[in-house]
Amino acid sequence: MPARPFIHADFLLGNKQARELYHRYAAAEPIYDYHCHLPPDLIAKNHQFADLSELWLGGDHYKWRAMRTNGVQEKFITGDASPREKFQAWAETVPHTLRNPLHHWSALELKLYFGIEELLDGKSAERIWKKANARLARLRVHDLINMSNVAVICTTDDPADSLAHHQAIAANPGKLKARVYPAFRPDKALAVGSPAGFNAWVDKLAAAAGGSYASAGIKTFDDLLGALKKRHDDFHAIGCRVSDHGLESALAETCTHAQARMIFDAARRGRAASADEAARYGSYLMLEFGRWDAARGWTKQLHLGALRSNNTRLLAKLGPDTGFDSVGDFPQAVALSRYLNALDSTDQLPRTILYNNNPVDNYVLGTMIGNFQDGSIPGKVQFGSGWWFLDQKEGMEWQMNALSNLGLLSRFVGMITDSRSFVSYPRHEYFRRTLCNLLGADMAAGLVPNDLKVVGAMVKNICFANARDYFGLTLAKEFSK
Amino acid sequence: MPARPFIHADFLLGNKQARELYHRYAAAEPIYDYHCHLPPDLIAKNHQFADLSELWLGGDHYKWRAMRTNGVQEKFITGDASPREKFQAWAETVPHTLRNPLHHWSALELKLYFGIEELLDGKSAERIWKKANARLARLRVHDLINMSNVAVICTTDDPADSLAHHQAIAANPGKLKARVYPAFRPDKALAVGSPAGFNAWVDKLAAAAGGSYASAGIKTFDDLLGALKKRHDDFHAIGCRVSDHGLESALAETCTHAQARMIFDAARRGRAASADEAARYGSYLMLEFGRWDAARGWTKQLHLGALRSNNTRLLAKLGPDTGFDSVGDFPQAVALSRYLNALDSTDQLPRTILYNNNPVDNYVLGTMIGNFQDGSIPGKVQFGSGWWFLDQKEGMEWQMNALSNLGLLSRFVGMITDSRSFVSYPRHEYFRRTLCNLLGADMAAGLVPNDLKVVGAMVKNICFANARDYFGLTLAKEFSK
Amino acid sequence: MPARPFIHADFLLGNKQARELYHRYAAAEPIYDYHCHLPPDLIAKNHQFADLSELWLGGDHYKWRAMRTNGVQEKFITGDASPREKFQAWAETVPHTLRNPLHHWSALELKLYFGIEELLDGKSAERIWKKANARLARLRVHDLINMSNVAVICTTDDPADSLAHHQAIAANPGKLKARVYPAFRPDKALAVGSPAGFNAWVDKLAAAAGGSYASAGIKTFDDLLGALKKRHDDFHAIGCRVSDHGLESALAETCTHAQARMIFDAARRGRAASADEAARYGSYLMLEFGRWDAARGWTKQLHLGALRSNNTRLLAKLGPDTGFDSVGDFPQAVALSRYLNALDSTDQLPRTILYNNNPVDNYVLGTMIGNFQDGSIPGKVQFGSGWWFLDQKEGMEWQMNALSNLGLLSRFVGMITDSRSFVSYPRHEYFRRTLCNLLGADMAAGLVPNDLKVVGAMVKNICFANARDYFGLTLAKEFSK
Repeated sequence: MPARPFIHADFLLGNKQARELYHRYAAAEPIYDYHCHLPPDLIAKNHQFADLSELWLGGDHYKWRAMRTNGVQEKFITGDASPREKFQAWAETVPHTLRNPLHHWSALELKLYFGIEELLDGKSAERIWKKANARLARLRVHDLINMSNVAVICTTDDPADSLAHHQAIAANPGKLKARVYPAFRPDKALAVGSPAGFNAWVDKLAAAAGGSYASAGIKTFDDLLGALKKRHDDFHAIGCRVSDHGLESALAETCTHAQARMIFDAARRGRAASADEAARYGSYLMLEFGRWDAARGWTKQLHLGALRSNNTRLLAKLGPDTGFDSVGDFPQAVALSRYLNALDSTDQLPRTILYNNNPVDNYVLGTMIGNFQDGSIPGKVQFGSGWWFLDQKEGMEWQMNALSNLGLLSRFVGMITDSRSFVSYPRHEYFRRTLCNLLGADMAAGLVPNDLKVVGAMVKNICFANARDYFGLTLAKEFSK
Repeated sequence: MPARPFIHADFLLGNKQARELYHRYAAAEPIYDYHCHLPPDLIAKNHQFADLSELWLGGDHYKWRAMRTNGVQEKFITGDASPREKFQAWAETVPHTLRNPLHHWSALELKLYFGIEELLDGKSAERIWKKANARLARLRVHDLINMSNVAVICTTDDPADSLAHHQAIAANPGKLKARVYPAFRPDKALAVGSPAGFNAWVDKLAAAAGGSYASAGIKTFDDLLGALKKRHDDFHAIGCRVSDHGLESALAETCTHAQARMIFDAARRGRAASADEAARYGSYLMLEFGRWDAARGWTKQLHLGALRSNNTRLLAKLGPDTGFDSVGDFPQAVALSRYLNALDSTDQLPRTILYNNNPVDNYVLGTMIGNFQDGSIPGKVQFGSGWWFLDQKEGMEWQMNALSNLGLLSRFVGMITDSRSFVSYPRHEYFRRTLCNLLGADMAAGLVPNDLKVVGAMVKNICFANARDYFGLTLAKEFSK
Repeated sequence: MPARPFIHADFLLGNKQARELYHRYAAAEPIYDYHCHLPPDLIAKNHQFADLSELWLGGDHYKWRAMRTNGVQEKFITGDASPREKFQAWAETVPHTLRNPLHHWSALELKLYFGIEELLDGKSAERIWKKANARLARLRVHDLINMSNVAVICTTDDPADSLAHHQAIAANPGKLKARVYPAFRPDKALAVGSPAGFNAWVDKLAAAAGGSYASAGIKTFDDLLGALKKRHDDFHAIGCRVSDHGLESALAETCTHAQARMIFDAARRGRAASADEAARYGSYLMLEFGRWDAARGWTKQLHLGALRSNNTRLLAKLGPDTGFDSVGDFPQAVALSRYLNALDSTDQLPRTILYNNNPVDNYVLGTMIGNFQDGSIPGKVQFGSGWWFLDQKEGMEWQMNALSNLGLLSRFVGMITDSRSFVSYPRHEYFRRTLCNLLGADMAAGLVPNDLKVVGAMVKNICFANARDYFGLTLAKEFSK
């Protein structure tokens, strides 16, 4: 074993400038987590995790994929093995994850939340299990969040959700310092290709929207638009300022209100929309959503290019989001241009963040944003941080290099967690170290001025202030400007 | 502030070998600028710029995009603000461009043309404004070009242009050392999808072609071909040896003469060609153009993959080439292969340079050229230098790495300016430093022989001699072999 | 000239850790060459090469492309020039290949097989020609293979091949230590779009399959399936455990048995299948092949994305595989997902290795494999090593970085030769040095534990043991577990 622990103060920081940037300008900044998948119910009830297995392996499909690749049977992944057995299977997988972000994340999380510096493997598993569980017994969800100096959390929420958990958190935040808001993610409103699921969802939406929607149901396409708009208003009222969409590629087909209505009516009668109809119908809604966001001053996020649910055999057993999604190679440029332009042409383009799942789209997105910067605010259209499979050192560096070369890195709103786990906040530390390492190397190479104050100010902005000034979410006083 | 100025003798040169390569083999080589967008009229009249704002901000849509991204209002970009106000807006943007090529280019240009080493920002703006303008008062266009040791300039010219400015330059070069030639860029001949603009252009072409075309007009498709060929001859007579085309992807549909004629006739009558018709018609013309180039010994350039004019709202206000273009993701390989093969199959493929705007096409283009090298001359088909959004350190390195791995870097005809600005020649210095830095690192790592003479000879060739031997343009005696 | 020869013990190894990894863990490992294009007849007869020209230039289209790019006439490449003249033309090209893998490969091959450290160029050509030929006179094919410590060789074989050469090798291995097996590559079974070639091939297949197929011929689609399955069995009987397919993209169209039969019948009558029919017919066969592989415990290899035979003029003169192939940009993700899922849905997905020819597909393939890992064995679905134009340092590093970030590098079955040359085994050394250099840099940077034993064990596995455990080919005792 090396004398210095694997995770140490200068982890990832390759030179003196990088270290100074990180320790003096980045480390102390709060976290502005404007996109994640944390479950609001666990925040509302300030959940206590039973053990490290529940915390780490309960829903983390990144780890599940790694275990399957390592030859671990499903029993020890999502099956009925005991928590300790599952932990052992993961522990034995960890040494096989060298060079994968899971290796870094696991070590960072053990260090930061549990003070454990030993690397996890089959032999250290028992020691680490005991030590971590002992510590975990004294930590609840709010503690884990507070430990990471989080100013704001935007979860990901269906308009058909009641927002009851968010209301509960707002009503009773306890010692939680972070403000917690929903994000408006109406993906299911587009699912006219699968009428059974769609119609169940429409009924759920009606209940959530309340009033005549709840009593009389959503009968017409205009009812649907009304109910969705009602929920948009409800989300706004509780403080939400962010929407989000997961799409293979932007939807920008022409579609009249009459056409959208007919497609909706057919789906309501149980007839599945064709791919073409679904695209047109979705295009209609996406324009509506964009206009609502612009009118309310929200920020719209587009997550483009995932290829989901590839394995029907295991999907049937385990359900969605269990590790069978991957990277697509859909054309992005033309439709994305058309969508953004359609909103912009009437000056109704909201602040927008574009995320790609395939790094080949970096230059398309990195230049697309420049077409719609109109000087109204700095960095109005953003190229979002490395997403999903790109959320690792290589992917983050590519995104930051592309953004730097094609736009203004200085106006970047920075990192998100995008995680279902309460111990994923070290991903921000990971991002910040990577950012500082990149800039430190540039300073040493003479590519940027060797001026800590100038570069440090940019680092600080990317860590927190840019996002704070961009999104306009209400923060606790200690995190406000 | 660091003791050493930001731009210094060894800027970008990371080790001893890189420095020796640059200073001993690259720095003194003349510039062979075989593709740019310099306005011939300003060369012909040896224009005097009023101030740094006119020189820098008059037409530079790279800077405009950066300013919009930085939250600058259009008034201070293309609007009616004063030159000094616009300069201030740009100066305040510069510190926000860290890691963008604009930051390097601006610093290089201030140093090389104005001897200014101070970095531009809101505070230094007034000092720099005064100092640069004082110097600029003593510099005209020919001086700026001569300062950069330019041997040849190929501008970009429509066949419908009269070439009067080029004739004026040739007739009265003054102290200008560079020979200035037009390049034949007939993009508008393909625009049958927009009959109004197309027909106006056809009439302009008729006037430029003279003779019966001018007196009787272009009536038939054969007239069009004749007038275009006449201009090709005229361009040749004035020394042009280069053509150029901007296309989303290569055009390689089958199209008979009769089909092309019908599409032309319809457009002349005001009926817009469909996308399919326009592609077929364009394919017909592109084959003709290729054969003319081959017969004349010209070099054809294909600029592939830009997605233009994305923002209709601002385009309507500001016109084309104002900063609303970006990177497309069109498939390139099959059509490009088909086009090059169609010309090659009758042994009528001219020397050809392929440029991509999206780095994802690097390996397609880098291997495509190898399919059509026939041993007739070294590097007959070229993978062109990083274009537009790729004209920065990362993009140039990717292009050179791809070319190295897939073909022969040693036969590369090197850098172009591709700029509308008379102070963009430092981009050649930037390219050369990047090239030497890459090779110096390889020498130190043992990836190429640590032999300055061998590697230096290659550097020298890429800087100038390869292009001189490839294009066959007539140069002033001091630049000839 | 530098004091140290260009190829030295620490070539490519950038730091102390890299050197220790390579020399202690990688260098001594045997070579497991599970995919190449070595001609079995030359192995069977233990061929003696006449001279370095035959060995190096007889069939190496990489070198031919480089020579054409360098302006060498075809006479000196594939024409009637003398072996010595051709060698001279190549020797004069070598200094122009700086930064191309050919430069490294040539130097490595001269060093390893002939003990020659001098770099090849026009001047050293005569010395090297004499020295290498003298050595070559004492080396036959088996010697060349034994010199490289090769445990197994899988060639690439058409089901219509008789396997006579493989039988001869197995019957009389002489001193050859490597076991040599065929790989089942039925690409020609899919060629219903070219009936003339297809029907000639079907007749050849009938003869190879023997029995009633030979006596009565292949008359029906079921006959074809039967004959192919017979050959699959024959290949299995001789020890083959690997199949291989070269496709522009995966075939995953729906196709019933009746549809496939009709397409087959039409092709047998001389009617060419349309592109759509060929895709459906191919999809049917690819599912069959996959099921056979799964039932037999074979590994399937998919080589995706080459764009072949681009130059019809030179192809007509020189035939296929002469240097006119390049990189395509076909969409890969959706069809590949569908194909793998179709096999997996009935639990008939064999071990599978995916190779891409365009680096833009790295993240698609690197994540696609994760969708079909089912815990049955480690690394069941593999992202294959850098293929063809990607078989160089940059391409191999990209592949290994993608695999590391998206999956488990530790489970990688490593390098293949993929060559037609008996002196291409140094490509394994090249790969191993690149791997160790990558990991050594990571150790120094603190990205992986600075623990030689842990990282070295992974290196060793990637060099040999992973492949040995994965493919299940029978090896000589000295190479077995």
